[in-house]
Formats: sequence, structure tokens, C-alpha cells
Amino acid sequence: MRLSERELVSLIRRKLARSTASEGTIVGPGDDAAIIAPTPGEALALSTDAIVEDVHFRRRWATGFLLGLKSLLSSISDIFAMGARPRACLVSLGLSTWASPLFVEDLFEGMLKAAGRFGASIVGGNITRSNKLFIDMTVTGHLAPGNAITRAGAKVGDAIYVTGHLGGAALAAKHLFGGRIDRGRLAEVESFLRDDVAATPGDAQVELLSRFFAPPIRAEESSALAAAGICTSMIDISDGIGSDLREVCHESGVGAVIEIDSIPVFDRLPGSLAINRRDMLRLAISGGEDYELLFTVRQSDELRLQRLFQENDLCPITKIGRITPNSEGIVFLDNDGRPSEGFTGFDHFSTKEEGH
Amino acid sequence: MRLSERELVSLIRRKLARSTASEGTIVGPGDDAAIIAPTPGEALALSTDAIVEDVHFRRRWATGFLLGLKSLLSSISDIFAMGARPRACLVSLGLSTWASPLFVEDLFEGMLKAAGRFGASIVGGNITRSNKLFIDMTVTGHLAPGNAITRAGAKVGDAIYVTGHLGGAALAAKHLFGGRIDRGRLAEVESFLRDDVAATPGDAQVELLSRFFAPPIRAEESSALAAAGICTSMIDISDGIGSDLREVCHESGVGAVIEIDSIPVFDRLPGSLAINRRDMLRLAISGGEDYELLFTVRQSDELRLQRLFQENDLCPITKIGRITPNSEGIVFLDNDGRPSEGFTGFDHFSTKEEGH
Repeated sequence: MRLSERELVSLIRRKLARSTASEGTIVGPGDDAAIIAPTPGEALALSTDAIVEDVHFRRRWATGFLLGLKSLLSSISDIFAMGARPRACLVSLGLSTWASPLFVEDLFEGMLKAAGRFGASIVGGNITRSNKLFIDMTVTGHLAPGNAITRAGAKVGDAIYVTGHLGGAALAAKHLFGGRIDRGRLAEVESFLRDDVAATPGDAQVELLSRFFAPPIRAEESSALAAAGICTSMIDISDGIGSDLREVCHESGVGAVIEIDSIPVFDRLPGSLAINRRDMLRLAISGGEDYELLFTVRQSDELRLQRLFQENDLCPITKIGRITPNSEGIVFLDNDGRPSEGFTGFDHFSTKEEGH
Repeated sequence: MRLSERELVSLIRRKLARSTASEGTIVGPGDDAAIIAPTPGEALALSTDAIVEDVHFRRRWATGFLLGLKSLLSSISDIFAMGARPRACLVSLGLSTWASPLFVEDLFEGMLKAAGRFGASIVGGNITRSNKLFIDMTVTGHLAPGNAITRAGAKVGDAIYVTGHLGGAALAAKHLFGGRIDRGRLAEVESFLRDDVAATPGDAQVELLSRFFAPPIRAEESSALAAAGICTSMIDISDGIGSDLREVCHESGVGAVIEIDSIPVFDRLPGSLAINRRDMLRLAISGGEDYELLFTVRQSDELRLQRLFQENDLCPITKIGRITPNSEGIVFLDNDGRPSEGFTGFDHFSTKEEGH
């Protein structure tokens, strides 16, 4: 680390000052705390998330920009998963000696891109030393007090839906952690995402990698669902359907049955990285990193849901199963209608190999 | 790590559920985000801070309880340093394999003690793996929108004050990092602080160590100063007067002169750990960890300040210098009135040895 802490903080503050100052920020970066004016009449959502070197990324392939972008997007996703809208972000960095000032600048460039996409701002943070780099982000959001969509409201008989297509991010992660992506391709991904973080790349490999670094945060879908008030529960898919559905079932005190064949998998795979459908389903269920939304609605609201998404030109949604009594547990059915073995969710601490 | 992530989260949630639920918490721990109702008419303070193994503590001597207590107290200190009152806390843990479930429980026990002391609550968090343990905490607070006391308002001629006595925490840290405190003494400190985190131990060594693990957060003093509206700037002393005063001067665009002999040093030292006054002053200026308040007031408000502290039976305060023009820089004067050499502040990244 060639800069002093003070010089590094100055560098970050100059970077943050160039972003559009957020309305309602009374005191921004550089003091003991940031001060913001809450949105009148709204409740406040608070979420925190950490990204750690050699757990969530490797130094070898994560550029500052891509890491900053992905980190803050995935944190912002938690706010949308409650039906709230992001507002102010705090970034706490544990900086390893390998993190150059240029890397830190790029990291904030990526985070500013993520925040800016949703009109959020970075209002403060902290830096300290750490032998492995970590990024801990807190995102605040706002929402009408009665509109929060928790994990706890799913009822027996509700339909289970997911947005978009799953498994792509986990496949990208597999290849990244496996060291099978060269830096030239990553430079293409970065160049593409610096230009437009929300567009779809033409090249299939660039698109697949973009699923990992710039997951398709479902902002409009979240807002529409919150305003319509038809979700009984919602979660963002960070760890794979297996694990995240288990959270919903646990909090709601219910079971679930999932028809595996109905799970919409990401299928625009580049020839060189293609895998079979069964393995892709496995990634959708156990891989994680998709940041699509999983939500439940009453059967009587399914028509309204379909109309809501069609009329507002929102993303594709797919029904993948239904909520059952708690005693029935969580069951994944094969297309012959029999329980499938061998599908599980993500657990940072036990079942997964090092690397995500 | 013998528990799965899910089991560990359950353990933490049970622990948090036993704390008094905070008024205005709409959704607590266990969802994508916590939801709180902002205090009507008040602005929101947001601060984040991290504690990292082998940077801020060593596994050898930091028990879970003491580490949790100290971590959250030092984070809460940032909120008071703005003149705000703490409200909701988020705790993001990077857990090393050595951190047992019992350690994690104790960590939260310490954090609950810290939060509970000020009527704050822990509303959410995150856990992930990390090779070295880290604790990243975000604390939100509230204050009347016009009452924020920043680092940026000091004016030439203002008097510079500090609360309490300085250097004790840094001396304790020196002995802790030097391996010169045995675990039996730490057990006494923990036992004392579990009983009453705000009392003063009778034993001098226990008292000195308590300065490090339970710094005397100046809650009432902060509230009184914010309500009186007489501070032109304020900061909490986390890195030592040298560094923290430099922050105030930098943000305010001013210089300062400090009379070294007027700095109130912590002097109830146990015989076995006693050091001379000059070294104690050095710790007060460059050591950090005191979490006392440093603030500036107009000369014309000094009498009002003295009365405010006397009439409300607040802690001792000491005038240590005055604000000067920017061009004069920051000068430390010896008691012969000549600039003193060799006093500096804390910089995590350059000047300090590993660990402090």
C-alpha cells in the first residue's frame, strides 16, 4: 500500500464527489457518520452483505471495477427483495496490501455504476487493513411501511414463481474459480459493462460472464409486486433455489413441491462452456449468484400477476411449484412425478467446496 | 466450524430475540433486510466500522464477549460524535474456522450489552467465511436535522476541548498486543464488565484494561452539546488527538495549536504497568482507542460550556488548545512554549507497527 490512509480516503472522496449528489444527503462521506433525511412517511430498509477474497472471488480474475459492480449490485438486490427501493450505501473495505490505489479507484467506479443505476448514492464508509480483501456493504432503502414483502408469509396452496432464467451466474462462477477464463475475455466483459451495465451482450461468453458480474437486478418487478400487494413472500436467489426456498419455507412454516423441469434455466450458453440440462438445473438449484427473485402468490392472484407483468412489460416469470404443509418438507419432483434425489442448496460453511 | 450456516444463524437469532425488541422495528433479523420506522421529524445518521483479527485484536487475548462489547461500543461512538443517538445496528461477521459457536454467542452477548446500554438494538446482519475474523458493524442513529455536529465547522480562535482522560486505552492495547496480560486478568475484566459495563473497577489493572474494552462512551455529553448548539466541530478520538485533530483541521480548513502539558492523561495506572508522563502524553496523542470526544467551541461560548457540564453533572472536560489559521498548521507546544518534535497521529497504513 503506497498511499497513507489519509491519501486513500482523499482519493475515494474525490471519486464519490463526482457522482451525482443524492437528494436528502445532509452530511456525505468524510465525517464520523453520514446524515440523510428519511423519505417522509416511508419506512427504512437496512441490509448488510460482505464479499471476501478467496471465498466470493479470486484476485486473479476479479478486476476492481467488476468486483465493485458485482458487490454492490448483490447488496442492492436484498433491498429489492423486500419490495423497497435503495437509497444510501455505506462501503467498509478491508484492504490487502495487493490492492493498489488504482484498484481501489476502480472498485468505487464499479460501485458507483451499480448505485447510479438505481438512483442510490454512496454516503460513507470505512477502510482498514486486512490480509485478505473484504468489502462489506450496507444499503438502506425506503418503502411504504405496509409494503414490505418478507420471507414469512407463504401459505399452503400458494404458487411459487421465479423471475428470469437461472444457473448462468453459477456456471460463470464455476469457470472463473476453475481458472478457465482468460483475462482478455474479462477485459471484454468489463468494457461492455462499463458502457452499459443493463444491456445484453451479443457474444455468448461475454453474456454468461455478465450474469455473474452484473446480475439482472429486478428493480421494476420488485416495485410492481410491492405496489400490487400480491406477494405472500419474496427472497432474492443468492444461494440457489434449494437454499433460498428453504429460507422461505422455514420462515413461513410451510413445505414446498418444485417441479424440476419447470425451472427456467439460462440457455444462451457459448459452445465452449455448454453443459447438459441436468447439470444446468443442478446449478439453478444449488449454485446461487443469480439474484433473480423467488416469490409466492395466492392461486387466486395468479391471473392478476400475469397481467401485471404483461401490461408493464416486465421480465419473464415462471411458476416452478407450490407451497405445501410444513410436514411435507421440500420436495423436488422429476418429470415422472417422482421425488428427485441429489438436489440441495448452498451452505457457506459445510457442503460447498472452497470458492463459492 | 461445526455448525452449518443455517444453524449458526438460528443460534444468533435466538440470542437476538432475547434482547428487548426495539420500538419501531417492523422487520427484525432473518430477512433480506430489516425494516424500521424512522423517528418522525428526525434525520438519520449512518456509520460503519470494522474490527479485524491481527489488526485490531489478537485471538490470543480477545474473548468473544470483550470483543463484541468493544467493537459495538466503538461503532456507537461515531454516532454520538455527530450529536446523534444510536438506534439500529447491523452486524456483518467474517468467521474464521477457529470461531466456535460459543465464541459467536459470546460475541453477540457483548454486542447486546453495548447496544442495550444506549437503548439501541441489533436488527440484522450477515455471516460469511473469512480466514481472519472480522466484524463489520453499521449503526444508525437519529437527531434533529439541524443538530449534526460535523468535523467541518471549526473557526480560527475557537477553543479545543476533550472529554475525560486520554492514553489509558492505548496503554492497555500496548500491553495486550505485547502479550503481557495473562488470561486470568482478562477473565476478571470480563466478569466485571458483564456485571456493569459503565462502572469503574476498583483494581487499577482491571480499570486500565476496561479503558480498552469498554471505552467511556460520552452519550449524555454528546446529547447535551448537540442540544445546546455550541460546538463548531466534533470528532471521537479513535486514533489519538494527533490524527483526529488533523481530521477536524483538514475538514474545517484551519490549523491548531495544542499545549501538550494541558492534555489530560489517564493517571490511575497500576504500579506494574506505570509509565512516565511523557510517554503517556505520547499515547494520548498517537495511541488512539480512547473514544473520548474532541470538540471546538467559540471563545464566547466557553463559559456556557463550563456551566452546561457542571449543571448537568457531566464528565470532566479540558481545554487543550485553540484553532489557528490554516497556514499555521498543527503545532504541539511544550511547556516552555516551543514547538515539540516527535508527536504524530495514527495511520493504519503507513507509520504504525502491526497491531498498533
